[in-house]
Amino acid sequence: MSTMSEKILAKASGNTNVEAGDIVIANIDIAMVHDLTGPLSVESFEKINNGKVWDSSKIVIPFDHQVPADSIDSANNHILMREFVKKQGIEHFYDVNAGVCHQILPEKGHVVPGSVIVGADSHTCTHGALGAFATGIGSTDMAMVFSEGNLWFKVPETNRFNITGDLKENVYAKDVILHIIGMMGADGSTYKACEFAGQTVSDMSISDRMVLCNMAIEMGGKTGLVEADKKTIDYVEKHSNKPYEVFKTDLDSSSLNIIDIDVSELEPQIACPHNVDNVKAVSEVDTEIDQVFLGSCTNGRLSDLRDAAKILKGKKIANNTRMLVIPASKEVYLKALDEGLLKIFIEAGALVSSPCCGPCLGGHTGIIGPNEISLSTSNRNFKGRQGSSEGEVYLSSAAVAAASAIKGRITALE
Amino acid sequence: MSTMSEKILAKASGNTNVEAGDIVIANIDIAMVHDLTGPLSVESFEKINNGKVWDSSKIVIPFDHQVPADSIDSANNHILMREFVKKQGIEHFYDVNAGVCHQILPEKGHVVPGSVIVGADSHTCTHGALGAFATGIGSTDMAMVFSEGNLWFKVPETNRFNITGDLKENVYAKDVILHIIGMMGADGSTYKACEFAGQTVSDMSISDRMVLCNMAIEMGGKTGLVEADKKTIDYVEKHSNKPYEVFKTDLDSSSLNIIDIDVSELEPQIACPHNVDNVKAVSEVDTEIDQVFLGSCTNGRLSDLRDAAKILKGKKIANNTRMLVIPASKEVYLKALDEGLLKIFIEAGALVSSPCCGPCLGGHTGIIGPNEISLSTSNRNFKGRQGSSEGEVYLSSAAVAAASAIKGRITALE
Repeated sequence: MSTMSEKILAKASGNTNVEAGDIVIANIDIAMVHDLTGPLSVESFEKINNGKVWDSSKIVIPFDHQVPADSIDSANNHILMREFVKKQGIEHFYDVNAGVCHQILPEKGHVVPGSVIVGADSHTCTHGALGAFATGIGSTDMAMVFSEGNLWFKVPETNRFNITGDLKENVYAKDVILHIIGMMGADGSTYKACEFAGQTVSDMSISDRMVLCNMAIEMGGKTGLVEADKKTIDYVEKHSNKPYEVFKTDLDSSSLNIIDIDVSELEPQIACPHNVDNVKAVSEVDTEIDQVFLGSCTNGRLSDLRDAAKILKGKKIANNTRMLVIPASKEVYLKALDEGLLKIFIEAGALVSSPCCGPCLGGHTGIIGPNEISLSTSNRNFKGRQGSSEGEVYLSSAAVAAASAIKGRITALE
Repeated sequence: MSTMSEKILAKASGNTNVEAGDIVIANIDIAMVHDLTGPLSVESFEKINNGKVWDSSKIVIPFDHQVPADSIDSANNHILMREFVKKQGIEHFYDVNAGVCHQILPEKGHVVPGSVIVGADSHTCTHGALGAFATGIGSTDMAMVFSEGNLWFKVPETNRFNITGDLKENVYAKDVILHIIGMMGADGSTYKACEFAGQTVSDMSISDRMVLCNMAIEMGGKTGLVEADKKTIDYVEKHSNKPYEVFKTDLDSSSLNIIDIDVSELEPQIACPHNVDNVKAVSEVDTEIDQVFLGSCTNGRLSDLRDAAKILKGKKIANNTRMLVIPASKEVYLKALDEGLLKIFIEAGALVSSPCCGPCLGGHTGIIGPNEISLSTSNRNFKGRQGSSEGEVYLSSAAVAAASAIKGRITALE
């Protein structure tokens, strides 16, 4: 009578059974740092351990936040991390050309059902879409993981979102998760494992499920999870040769809170400034936009690029608006190139950058200035998130982003 | 008995004849500022003139140095310039998706033979490749041009490089101009108009001629020029509907200094740190490289991308090296995409960024850190030019850049 999270953490901690609230020390299957959080982890690791990391095959290091290096500081961070990779013999290192960490981890087969994944990035919860227990941790916690290969967790309770109903045309996983976050509030699932289940989720692709899990943190979730099914196994067997184990939640678990949601009447949603839970129907919002960003670990995958390209094909982006398209990985970029999507974007007037986090975190590619308004397919719209604290960020699906780019103002799809 | 420069400046200043050393006030046909130099020009203009610019159809404003905005400061510069464009009704504005100024000006038909072009960018001399008199000026000089539509010039003497001989395979215009700069020294043509003539130049494409003229400033030249011929007229009539006038240099002009150069035995050349005139044969240099940059107003055109792709096709970039490919404009990008070049670069392990100046000027896309070595197809290798002052920059052709990326060290073509 346990949840997925309890079962995974029980196995990882060598217990037959654990319950929500228990403190366990779990073995880590994959530990991820990127170019922005990695240097802090490395510096902390080297203070506590002057030898080797616990397992150089289990640490994954992608560069994605400040790539290619946008300053001497970034270049120094990259140099420090490359030296660490070399010195420690880290097997899975992805340099400036590879893409966003949360896209690379599943694509390259590092994520399998039943595994425990920690990343020094808050959106590590994304990987729960493949039935793993995946969560973001601090850079100094990561130093301990690098050294010991394990970490303590308080086993979380679970909010299981039982999602039913067929989505209308032009309504996507992003609209579902924005709706849920709006409903729950930014602290509505604090330290809860957020399971996404129900027929709607079963019908979703792995990419869509990653959108849901990616944003679990935006309602305070410790992680997001989807039970592995045939789609998951197909994906994992295509991308990975690691062993895996499928865990499912017993619906009579005592730490389980089931929340039923019918999405059959859901309209396209948008998160308005300056909080992710400030969610409205797109049709209620009408404002000019200066910049559209299609990309990020939330919505920079091939299906997102396809959704946007379908709308942008043969159209032009409005004069008052600029559009940035940043595929989430090299693999996504190459497929989008082969399918003619990149050409559609550029002919419409967008620019296509190399895979990176882009303006999502206010890094460097597409910073907004005072009084500028950004419509973004990413996951956070906090004040100043994409540049100036006097700017504003809205969050939507790729489809709404594309349609709005054409009109130069936020617009529902026709 | 006059040079091209004398004839163009005579016409532009309403004189029948001017001579080297004369001070003239010449009418300006095209005035260009970009996102980095534009704000200074605008601020200065608004101090001296609270009305309209002299001619809103003759000012061209491309954004290329810090695109998409890499900081709030850059975003503010962009906002300031967009407001100026709107307020002044500037007809030729190219936002963050368009490309590098010196590629856009000819591509979009702003450059025609016999015209006078000033740009607040030192490589404005590039446009002399189409038989114009084109030169870089300061941002505050530009404010006067914005206001009055003219500017004073001291008519320059001319160094005419009479270049003969067939180039060997794998030897390009870049090798020719590096050789000339090495021979002349960084101050070897100070305030001279640098004409490139002779059979070798006649045989060159417009792109190749732009490479020569682009780097005239690196030997102190006031401008670079190539007399317009059939190739020039074909190019101009394809890209522009503006009237033009072809001027040629009388070889018995008193202000003319002819320098004969035979390039038939020339080997691939490379400029070594930290000066453009520190030129050697590539075969004399053997050093590991951390980064290769293929792009810029010097060598980011389609022919350069083709030269590099031919070498990179089916190959992989060395593990110790990263490679950035930045097409010089949206047009170049789209053609390279259509021809399959971008795919070749990405499959080889390069990243392809959207059109911009990239790391050339140490902006933001691909900054190098201390002790890092960059091999770049751009035009300057001054200490700190691409980031850290403890880094080093070498300059070469696109072909040498591609071959070196594969080996991870500077290498002559086999």
